[in-house]
Amino acid sequence: MSTVHRAQASAPASVGNVGVGFDLLGHGFEGPRDRVVATRRSTPGVRIIAIHGADQDLPTAIDENTAGRAVQSLLAARAPTLGIDLELFKGIPLAAGMGGSAASAVAAAAAANALLPEPLPLPELYRHTLDGEAVAAGARTGDNVGSQLLGGLVLATPDRLIRLDVPDDLHCALVRPHLRLATRQSRAVLEQPWPLADIVSQTTALALFLTGCQRSDYMLIADGLRDVLVEPRRAPLIPGFARVKQAALAAGALGASISGAGPSVFAWCRGQDVARRAAAAMADGFAEVGLPCSQWTAPVAGEGVRLEPA
Amino acid sequence: MSTVHRAQASAPASVGNVGVGFDLLGHGFEGPRDRVVATRRSTPGVRIIAIHGADQDLPTAIDENTAGRAVQSLLAARAPTLGIDLELFKGIPLAAGMGGSAASAVAAAAAANALLPEPLPLPELYRHTLDGEAVAAGARTGDNVGSQLLGGLVLATPDRLIRLDVPDDLHCALVRPHLRLATRQSRAVLEQPWPLADIVSQTTALALFLTGCQRSDYMLIADGLRDVLVEPRRAPLIPGFARVKQAALAAGALGASISGAGPSVFAWCRGQDVARRAAAAMADGFAEVGLPCSQWTAPVAGEGVRLEPA
Repeated sequence: MSTVHRAQASAPASVGNVGVGFDLLGHGFEGPRDRVVATRRSTPGVRIIAIHGADQDLPTAIDENTAGRAVQSLLAARAPTLGIDLELFKGIPLAAGMGGSAASAVAAAAAANALLPEPLPLPELYRHTLDGEAVAAGARTGDNVGSQLLGGLVLATPDRLIRLDVPDDLHCALVRPHLRLATRQSRAVLEQPWPLADIVSQTTALALFLTGCQRSDYMLIADGLRDVLVEPRRAPLIPGFARVKQAALAAGALGASISGAGPSVFAWCRGQDVARRAAAAMADGFAEVGLPCSQWTAPVAGEGVRLEPA
Repeated sequence: MSTVHRAQASAPASVGNVGVGFDLLGHGFEGPRDRVVATRRSTPGVRIIAIHGADQDLPTAIDENTAGRAVQSLLAARAPTLGIDLELFKGIPLAAGMGGSAASAVAAAAAANALLPEPLPLPELYRHTLDGEAVAAGARTGDNVGSQLLGGLVLATPDRLIRLDVPDDLHCALVRPHLRLATRQSRAVLEQPWPLADIVSQTTALALFLTGCQRSDYMLIADGLRDVLVEPRRAPLIPGFARVKQAALAAGALGASISGAGPSVFAWCRGQDVARRAAAAMADGFAEVGLPCSQWTAPVAGEGVRLEPA
């Protein structure tokens, strides 16, 4: 039996979709992290006792909070009589397209898991974090929680997580304009269907992208890192998107697109120097349309969720 | 300078689309082959002097014949003053979904290439064979010509051919019902667009399939080898398709779908024994709806076009 009474875990941000893999591909992004402290208590059930650092009001009802729901799902499956209090420290901005809701679920599940009599290997928390993510996303899509669990580039299906190889010196530039997108609007533009030609173009890009990552072939990655399905419809919701993307490419990026549902924009680059130049150029692009922003760079093959001294 | 005056090449059949990669993936199939003999003559231009073994009338006008057009395209680029006579020996049935039109173009281009003062490496014939294929297919899709050129499983984009690894033990069962599909009809069913959920399902399958091939992971291949876009629309054009597919799976196949535009049906299998059982079961399935058929098995990683003693 475990005697752990208090555990802490942190989860990274993530780049969902990675342009070419809508609801399918994501990668962890080492920059801001969400932290969760889980503490055992004597009565069964999950409570959220505090949320620190949130840039918008978050529900503390367990069923409506991604962290609460993930831990509830875990306990229901593994330790129905356990009681856990959660304290959330938000580091990742919400509604930014950086996987902020998902990261709370992942960190909470990992922290609570450490309190179980028999903790699960972290990748096996996937289905519970999907239950959490569904509270915010309205669907069990694993590109954010999956890549935050494993770190690096991940192929996330409803019942499978596969970490994919990427070249060692692949870096990501991520720029978040200080702007909030209405989720309803970014979903509404995806309601109209797509013709076969667009689908063939996208599947071609996906195949080039995956083959390029696997072979560390930057030319294939650059050819494949383009989204003809979702980006053209969501880009108009992000002021300055076209110039920001163009700035990234002009700075030497392999490709750039919308991170998750946006409004953050990411660019993949060969080497940290290019990523830094791309991030600065993208931020300049947003500045030109009057949007202040935050910028980061990180290796694509970064670390996922981790336990920390509580 | 080459002094070759006569050359012969043969090209294999192919399985276009491979279910999950419409217009993108194909693999050569070692069974029936098309052969072409190319002979130099003194006056410039391309002629088709004979077509043997065709199961339907084929045009001999250069612009309307896939072999003639491919060689015309090659000569225009490399040897505009050369004259070449082509003699075609059809081995692959036409309008069967086995790449029969493409194979004539590939064999002809390879044979004619051998007569050039400076023959090209065979993969560089790709764009000329695409010109040939376009005569029959109405579009420059490379899944058939590309996989017939390289052999094995190929990712074919409009300007790139990439041979993909597959497990050594992977075999294909191919069954051709003696039935002719109206190409117009099999295209018409693809005109209506697809919703996002179907596209995500297909891209998920494609990613699993490619990752499975690369890692020789049969479970991933089996999960990925499913087509939710095209197969559901074209299957009703092939009598008995559902029972034929089910028969393949019941015989142990990893997956089965329509080869090219059909009506042939292919199944991927682990090992030749399973492939033979699957082929027999599929043929029985067609027999149950009154369709006689031909059946073959071959390794997926087969040989592509080859020169032969003329």
